[in-house]
Amino acid sequence: MSLRGSLREIVESVDGALAAIIMAYDGIPIDEVVAAQTEFDLQLLTVEYATVLKEIKRAVAVIKVGEMEEVSIATGQVRVVMRVLNDELFTVLIMTKNGNFGKGRYLLRLKSPAMAEELG
Amino acid sequence: MSLRGSLREIVESVDGALAAIIMAYDGIPIDEVVAAQTEFDLQLLTVEYATVLKEIKRAVAVIKVGEMEEVSIATGQVRVVMRVLNDELFTVLIMTKNGNFGKGRYLLRLKSPAMAEELG
Repeated sequence: MSLRGSLREIVESVDGALAAIIMAYDGIPIDEVVAAQTEFDLQLLTVEYATVLKEIKRAVAVIKVGEMEEVSIATGQVRVVMRVLNDELFTVLIMTKNGNFGKGRYLLRLKSPAMAEELG
Repeated sequence: MSLRGSLREIVESVDGALAAIIMAYDGIPIDEVVAAQTEFDLQLLTVEYATVLKEIKRAVAVIKVGEMEEVSIATGQVRVVMRVLNDELFTVLIMTKNGNFGKGRYLLRLKSPAMAEELG
């Protein structure tokens, strides 16, 4: 399945999904599927969260607990799950507050190996 | 229930739990229950993750998606869930890689309002 196909399947299978994006740590999107119009600034969100992920990667290296695999952040209005694909890229799934967080995490984990392979 | 009682109940109810801690954003623990000897430096972990949480709080304020509520970080060896209690304090649950992440999240969410109240 193509990268975009995988992203689309995730977005369409998860209740409350707003977007699924493959990104680089510098905040530049490689591919994305946006489900619906939203009041949130998704570009600003992903750029800020990419910065956060770099900071977590640094912290994880300091405390020596293995490689960073997955980070999720829930706020009053959105839930975001990020999963590392390789040294340069990660996937981001953005859901509404009441989105199906468990299924989102599950599908991201399930699809990540194939997406990582697709990215070479 | 006392703060320590709540922390103990969380640690004893979650498979794979290593420790439950109430912390300030400066990395200083207010109260903690450690379940078992572990190879990991839990103090270093909590100090580093407190720094990470401050960075996430900053990012969340920039993107305007409501207040930060919960952050989880999974690495090759440990899973950590952090839940905000008030402006100064948060709870941290540290689990092994194969710990019951879902139950850990659930109990932290369930117990947080009472812990926040206990803290005044």
